[in-house]
Amino acid sequence: MQNIFFNAQHAPLGAYATFTLGYRGASGGLGFELARPADQNIYLGLETEKPFLFEALPFFAESENDRARFADPDPEGPPRARIRSFAPEEIQREFHACTDVWRAGDLTFSVYTPLHALPDPDLAPEGELKKALVPAVFAELVVDNRRSRRPRRAFFGFQGSDPHTSMRRLADSSPGRIVGVAQGRHTGLAAADPKVQAGLAFSLEELLGPNAEENFHFGLGTHGALVMRVEPGEQRSFRFVLSFYRGGWVTSGIDACYYYTRFFRDLEDVAGFGLQRFEKYKAAAVTADRELEQAGLSSEQYFMLALAVRSYYANSELLDFAGRPFWIVNEGEYRMLNTLDLTVDHVFFELRYHPWTVRNVLDRYAERYAYRDQVRWPGEERLHPGGLSFTHDMGVANTVTRPGTSAYERFGTDGCFSFMTHEELLNWILCAAMYYEQTQDGDWLRGKRALLLEALESLVRRDHYDPAARDGVMSLDSALTRGRGEITTYDSHDASLKQARHNLYLAVKTWAGYVVLEWLLGVLEEGRAAQGAGEQADRCARTVTAQAGPGGALPAILALDGEAADDARIIPAAEGLLIPYLTPCRSLMTGTGRFAFLVTALKNHLQAVLVPGVCLLADGGWKISSSFENTWLSKTYLCQYIAREILGLPWGETGAAADRAHVSWLLNPETAYWAWCDQMVAGAAKAARYYPRGVTSFLWLEETRRPAG
Amino acid sequence: MQNIFFNAQHAPLGAYATFTLGYRGASGGLGFELARPADQNIYLGLETEKPFLFEALPFFAESENDRARFADPDPEGPPRARIRSFAPEEIQREFHACTDVWRAGDLTFSVYTPLHALPDPDLAPEGELKKALVPAVFAELVVDNRRSRRPRRAFFGFQGSDPHTSMRRLADSSPGRIVGVAQGRHTGLAAADPKVQAGLAFSLEELLGPNAEENFHFGLGTHGALVMRVEPGEQRSFRFVLSFYRGGWVTSGIDACYYYTRFFRDLEDVAGFGLQRFEKYKAAAVTADRELEQAGLSSEQYFMLALAVRSYYANSELLDFAGRPFWIVNEGEYRMLNTLDLTVDHVFFELRYHPWTVRNVLDRYAERYAYRDQVRWPGEERLHPGGLSFTHDMGVANTVTRPGTSAYERFGTDGCFSFMTHEELLNWILCAAMYYEQTQDGDWLRGKRALLLEALESLVRRDHYDPAARDGVMSLDSALTRGRGEITTYDSHDASLKQARHNLYLAVKTWAGYVVLEWLLGVLEEGRAAQGAGEQADRCARTVTAQAGPGGALPAILALDGEAADDARIIPAAEGLLIPYLTPCRSLMTGTGRFAFLVTALKNHLQAVLVPGVCLLADGGWKISSSFENTWLSKTYLCQYIAREILGLPWGETGAAADRAHVSWLLNPETAYWAWCDQMVAGAAKAARYYPRGVTSFLWLEETRRPAG
Repeated sequence: MQNIFFNAQHAPLGAYATFTLGYRGASGGLGFELARPADQNIYLGLETEKPFLFEALPFFAESENDRARFADPDPEGPPRARIRSFAPEEIQREFHACTDVWRAGDLTFSVYTPLHALPDPDLAPEGELKKALVPAVFAELVVDNRRSRRPRRAFFGFQGSDPHTSMRRLADSSPGRIVGVAQGRHTGLAAADPKVQAGLAFSLEELLGPNAEENFHFGLGTHGALVMRVEPGEQRSFRFVLSFYRGGWVTSGIDACYYYTRFFRDLEDVAGFGLQRFEKYKAAAVTADRELEQAGLSSEQYFMLALAVRSYYANSELLDFAGRPFWIVNEGEYRMLNTLDLTVDHVFFELRYHPWTVRNVLDRYAERYAYRDQVRWPGEERLHPGGLSFTHDMGVANTVTRPGTSAYERFGTDGCFSFMTHEELLNWILCAAMYYEQTQDGDWLRGKRALLLEALESLVRRDHYDPAARDGVMSLDSALTRGRGEITTYDSHDASLKQARHNLYLAVKTWAGYVVLEWLLGVLEEGRAAQGAGEQADRCARTVTAQAGPGGALPAILALDGEAADDARIIPAAEGLLIPYLTPCRSLMTGTGRFAFLVTALKNHLQAVLVPGVCLLADGGWKISSSFENTWLSKTYLCQYIAREILGLPWGETGAAADRAHVSWLLNPETAYWAWCDQMVAGAAKAARYYPRGVTSFLWLEETRRPAG
Repeated sequence: MQNIFFNAQHAPLGAYATFTLGYRGASGGLGFELARPADQNIYLGLETEKPFLFEALPFFAESENDRARFADPDPEGPPRARIRSFAPEEIQREFHACTDVWRAGDLTFSVYTPLHALPDPDLAPEGELKKALVPAVFAELVVDNRRSRRPRRAFFGFQGSDPHTSMRRLADSSPGRIVGVAQGRHTGLAAADPKVQAGLAFSLEELLGPNAEENFHFGLGTHGALVMRVEPGEQRSFRFVLSFYRGGWVTSGIDACYYYTRFFRDLEDVAGFGLQRFEKYKAAAVTADRELEQAGLSSEQYFMLALAVRSYYANSELLDFAGRPFWIVNEGEYRMLNTLDLTVDHVFFELRYHPWTVRNVLDRYAERYAYRDQVRWPGEERLHPGGLSFTHDMGVANTVTRPGTSAYERFGTDGCFSFMTHEELLNWILCAAMYYEQTQDGDWLRGKRALLLEALESLVRRDHYDPAARDGVMSLDSALTRGRGEITTYDSHDASLKQARHNLYLAVKTWAGYVVLEWLLGVLEEGRAAQGAGEQADRCARTVTAQAGPGGALPAILALDGEAADDARIIPAAEGLLIPYLTPCRSLMTGTGRFAFLVTALKNHLQAVLVPGVCLLADGGWKISSSFENTWLSKTYLCQYIAREILGLPWGETGAAADRAHVSWLLNPETAYWAWCDQMVAGAAKAARYYPRGVTSFLWLEETRRPAG
């Protein structure tokens, strides 16, 4: 691996919390509800053969000694203990999806974060939910002192960074049961081991000095650590639980609390529960790793999937709102709630581990975040009937927006923050199709009959107000843009991907919307509506395929309504194929199916654009638009699946080179601080960092035409 | 005033929260449970005659525009609105204890924070408590547009600084009732005025641009403000409530919540309540100012008292712990809870406004934070019986320590953080005396009979284990120091004030302990014990006065037990006179009273040391120890009262010069950021900043021999 010092977000499920570790310096730590790493000093080290000289993993920086504020020089002089970092070349890392192992000298530190199903709270026994939702991360420190004749001490601690609370010892509030250090009520490390002592001090050096133990209770200490002693000749393992806890209402706009507060009363309770069941959680992590590793991915694919799923977990949040579960995936550094154009990319992962969360999000969009608009033809003042769509998100950073409004969308622009009316309408439809396909939840589908009919009507009205002029493609923008234009999920791009109107990416996705509506409305025995959807799908497919140039490439902005094409080339042209392919609509796309010609056109397109200088970068990486530098990994993962599995494109060395390039972008020192990131420019993350969307890589586990592992 | 740009802590009572304002730059803002100002950008300004050009008070700095993280240049270009700061010379400030008024151009901004009684929660009707504890600060903006022919807009807003939550609009959660901007559930500004709009944006400039109103809902906005429009020819006042709210458990170690959560359900509720009663709170502030201003203080004295009481309020915290009130004063930047050696300096203020809080703190020390020790003679291993004392504090930053332990005290040192066993025992006794004297609460006193007897025994045992060798002065250190030494409250000093053993300051305070015990035990009809206390008081007074040198000065460390004196000169020698003087013990100190000789000796001492080069600095300020640069204002205030009121020392120009010097230290740009500060070195605060202890200045209001106002 080119760089082992990348941050990974070791996170429980549904707690919106993470123990981030891996980037050098004060770059990780225990964070909750943050847009970025907590930037805490993390101390993990072992005494050398020289007493009071310690070696530590390099996850800390110099910090100001708080003692200075007391305006009294320490009469004991500077601390006698010293800590130096292991040299980078002395350190090894073994990174898996659920296990992250660091080795240096005689020290081995492992973090365990199981990947598991989250049962439906309406159906699961409380005990199952409690186990799945424990807001904890598991860690183990093994000290090999077999070659030494001295007892040696090891430590695991952190410097608190919350400005409101102090560091404290857990033993002070739960005598006898556990030892630990915590900051306030929110974050802590704990052990249940008679060989572990918890201490506070102004610095780790002070804590590790001679006779420091009797002052381990020191309440003004800004640094807290667990200190262990290993006898000569002994190899000893120490187990830790890192806990998170946020009690009370945590949202604005509505009053909601973390779902786990039903099961755990405080940080101490979480730690105690986790420590009792440590072995089970560790075993679950190891098992999950093994299963993923046996899935036949290449090492590059596995690495990206592993890094991505950690960031998804860190962004996941299960709340209790008025006694009901409220599932949220936060949008990485932007922290928007359930951004619907991310949900559509998360469903492949979610339907595997917790399908009910997809329903939960779709229902909330239906109940609280649906809206109806009017539409306009560009350059015209006249308003036409529009229809149903859904907001971009449900709020930001635990502020829940009012019904029918997002945190993101602004009136009167066609740049970033414009309305995504058409895009989000499609996303809801496509998620609904995926949810029904995976769960066969007919009751749910029947409950959405009116909404699906309305969704179809809304899609059609965005094509053309004159039925005779319809071509299946979106041509009318929401009047909410005040005569400017709607955008797509690709909001940081140039027009080739950002502009919604006549956009190739959105056109194929619109086809997907129609084709799954044809299917779903058929299931609902809404024959006429299903037929109407099918006709629109036909129109759309014909409109798109008619635009193919001599080499097979399609223009990013279609030449329609007498307007010129944008000849940029985009990979996400094919994105819309995905969800129909994963439903019974697949039969229409393969063999002599009704839409095989569309699949063929997109195969030709991708073959034409996946060439150096167009949509392949010099390093082999994928560039989602030929006209813009910013390329998105989540979408690349998804389009890789489409290329191999749906279009049957050859992979080989070109594909392997792409994967190597994508890994190298994530490991770029500029990016590696941010764990998994989406938007890459010139090989480094520029936006959408600390991001959950990389779980599109879980599609790779479904492949039948898998590249060589 | 030499510098109007000093921070004042505009704070409600008991909410541990403050709206800090006055220092230039991003140096104030809405803070809670912090060791320092929140360092937020605060925006307060008015449109000039030139549209979209605004002038603002200088309480903001350049900040990074969060839009950059979205990796898309704004197609609308840079904002058209511009904000410039008023020049310092254009700004006037009128600072009172409860009203702080800023004037610049056509804008007047006032903050109102009433100073009021807080009734005993056990006796007061809920409505009274609710009014007193509302976690809100009141502000008013007056725009004088009478000379303009244009409508002009004004604004009041802030940039959120909490990393966990987002900015939001209050109207979104409480439609119709109030308009406001808030960060999460914790801090906000609100108005109830149809001319006020609440908006969010990436910057104030964006918010104030053309047609920005339709996007005032923008949820990703990091800046929130209330925007007002004033018509041509109009003078208009706008009223605001700044609210704080922290729900749920806020402590570690125990489960406690803010007392005000009994009366208010959230930030919106606080804002609504405050807005309804705005005029009453404003009137109360104005009335309190008038009363204080009519008390005949000099302008320097009034300024220091006004700044100090604001910081006391900001550090005050009333919790509900197991259904009972838990009063806390936090220790400024150190945030220790109810530091007992501060309590003894706060009682003069507290007994005036809320005497029950003194009882609350004393009871908690008695029940939870009493401990018993053994004592040692320096250099000897042998342990002798010690006895009762009290911890230095009850915890830090809302972490409540275990029974019998403080956050501060460490074993085995004689520097800062050593045990204050003797000092805190005296502080508890002296506070008890003050509480009983002011309230005549006989039931309470009788309930403390055993403890007072134990306190006397403990004091005596710290004098000498051999009754025949007792001299009234502390000679044995707690064995908790492991053979090192106890310290006094002057923990950042040199031995002249820091060392407890044989210390002159502590000796006179020990006399005070004995003399009030003699009185209290007499009240309790514990004749023999009272007599024993009296004999110790006599011994102590004789021991101290015997040490007077030819000029009348007493050594900082007494020459006792064959050990040498420390010839440093200290002003707090006289500190111990204070509390006996405020009780019936006064009769022993005046005229031909039994301790008149001690008072005379200390008068001679102070006269000898209050001279340039000893305890007067070049600028006329007081230097509490001749041997050390660090001088403390809280103690200076108290000793000024003693000098004038008890010792009858002349004041005149030397005294006035001292007050002027002390004001200039507080207004020093290095200090002025920290609101009221205690520990001064070379005219600037070096420690104990943002501190509550300056309310010792309230003693000045009790003076009968007042200096000319």
